[in-house]
Amino acid sequence: MKISSYVLPGGTESYGRLEGDTVVDAGTTLRGTYPDLRALLAGDAIHRLASADGPSLPVSDVTMLPTIPKPDKIVCIGLNYLGHIKETGRDRPEYPSIFTRYPSSVVGHGAPLVRPKVSQNFDFEGEFTVVIGKPGRHIARDRAYDHVAGYTCFNDGSIRDYQRHTTQFWGGKNFWQSGSMGPCLVTPDELGDPTEPRMVTRLNGEIMQDTSVGDLAFDIPDLIAYVSTIIDLAPGDIIATGTPSGVGNFRDPKVFMKPGDTIEVEIDGIGTLSNPIIDET
Amino acid sequence: MKISSYVLPGGTESYGRLEGDTVVDAGTTLRGTYPDLRALLAGDAIHRLASADGPSLPVSDVTMLPTIPKPDKIVCIGLNYLGHIKETGRDRPEYPSIFTRYPSSVVGHGAPLVRPKVSQNFDFEGEFTVVIGKPGRHIARDRAYDHVAGYTCFNDGSIRDYQRHTTQFWGGKNFWQSGSMGPCLVTPDELGDPTEPRMVTRLNGEIMQDTSVGDLAFDIPDLIAYVSTIIDLAPGDIIATGTPSGVGNFRDPKVFMKPGDTIEVEIDGIGTLSNPIIDET
Repeated sequence: MKISSYVLPGGTESYGRLEGDTVVDAGTTLRGTYPDLRALLAGDAIHRLASADGPSLPVSDVTMLPTIPKPDKIVCIGLNYLGHIKETGRDRPEYPSIFTRYPSSVVGHGAPLVRPKVSQNFDFEGEFTVVIGKPGRHIARDRAYDHVAGYTCFNDGSIRDYQRHTTQFWGGKNFWQSGSMGPCLVTPDELGDPTEPRMVTRLNGEIMQDTSVGDLAFDIPDLIAYVSTIIDLAPGDIIATGTPSGVGNFRDPKVFMKPGDTIEVEIDGIGTLSNPIIDET
Repeated sequence: MKISSYVLPGGTESYGRLEGDTVVDAGTTLRGTYPDLRALLAGDAIHRLASADGPSLPVSDVTMLPTIPKPDKIVCIGLNYLGHIKETGRDRPEYPSIFTRYPSSVVGHGAPLVRPKVSQNFDFEGEFTVVIGKPGRHIARDRAYDHVAGYTCFNDGSIRDYQRHTTQFWGGKNFWQSGSMGPCLVTPDELGDPTEPRMVTRLNGEIMQDTSVGDLAFDIPDLIAYVSTIIDLAPGDIIATGTPSGVGNFRDPKVFMKPGDTIEVEIDGIGTLSNPIIDET
């Protein structure tokens, strides 16, 4: 099953099944009990989506929101593909490098990504991303997948000069509406082995990043185990597992996103997260 | 005016005026329109608290919550006092060093701070902290104070070994219930000049940190201007301005918090944020 969050033509936020170019607005039936997808996950009620009724709409009639519109926590992993670690000139780390994004830095599929006034160094980072279903702390590696509700695509859009203002990545990773998440959550039974999919990032149709998401230095169980030692994972929390090699900043010449461009992150079995670039007004 | 967020004896979350050892539960009158203090700030209605009626309760009858119980964003500044920069062996930075904490890492005044199972390197960091009232981006230095709703005390409790796992501070700064905020928001008219107050951190009554909060490398207008270049500041957002010298990790011998200890952050004109330490169970 694929599940999306969106705004209906009348302006109401909802969620439902994504079936090809159609959304089945199961939220019509379920929103009274579970106002959003995060609440549905917290109610351990994702199975109710499979059979819930609701009107069918063309995807083009709704405005997509981030997969989870207001997650409690976004956990971003840096430097987690060996190829990307190599291109940044670093050694393989002993621990995962982690930072966060505020939800207001992330838009949904189809929404514009905003290049800020203060910088033109606007880079892309395609990321295979875990959505937490079941809460927990101190989750053992061998129970980690029990806590996964599904997977989605993430673009960890980064303002590179601000990212280097200090040792902390915060400045480069939190610009308003500079990242995106979507177009859907795909459940584990539908995706199959989460180490198999191919992920491709395309700028104006040209492949910039191309990897198997199994090439992680820290795999999904590693990340869930480490992160849950520190924080209380909650339903709807997001773990973006890091980007592979090929980002614009380490190309020669460098490649940055500019108004008029379209950036896409496609993951086999999930779909394509596509966003146009605009300038901040 | 001093304003606190708390849980009433019956279990309802509310907010009201803190007057000495009494809270006047103005939330009784205002909660129907503004369910929490963040909503009151978003409604630009803090002035309504001054005259709102409500029952008076002893502070000892309520359970204090963080000043803003669920802020949209917590912005933490690292290395912002020249004395602390010096004790960490670093140079004066060109830009503020910024990281974040998730709200679930922060408890209220009086609640226990939890020393995690995995580390005994549990350190304190007293911080003078800004609560945003008016939303904005690209806020100029000379308009920065227009966006401040008030000030509070913060303890940026840190697990030092996890903080050093990678270049990113995330791991040390986000342990569940390892930090605190309170006991109240004090409005700018009541505090007076926000560069004047003395801030003292005491461990079991012994002074560990003692500074004027005017000794910032980046002052409040600097921070609001820089941060709002990147993010959309929203009502209830928190900017913890950084800690002065005297943290336990740079003492000889090192001093860490352990079960049975009491840690206090006192700021003139705001009050004392006090928390006992317990071990994670």
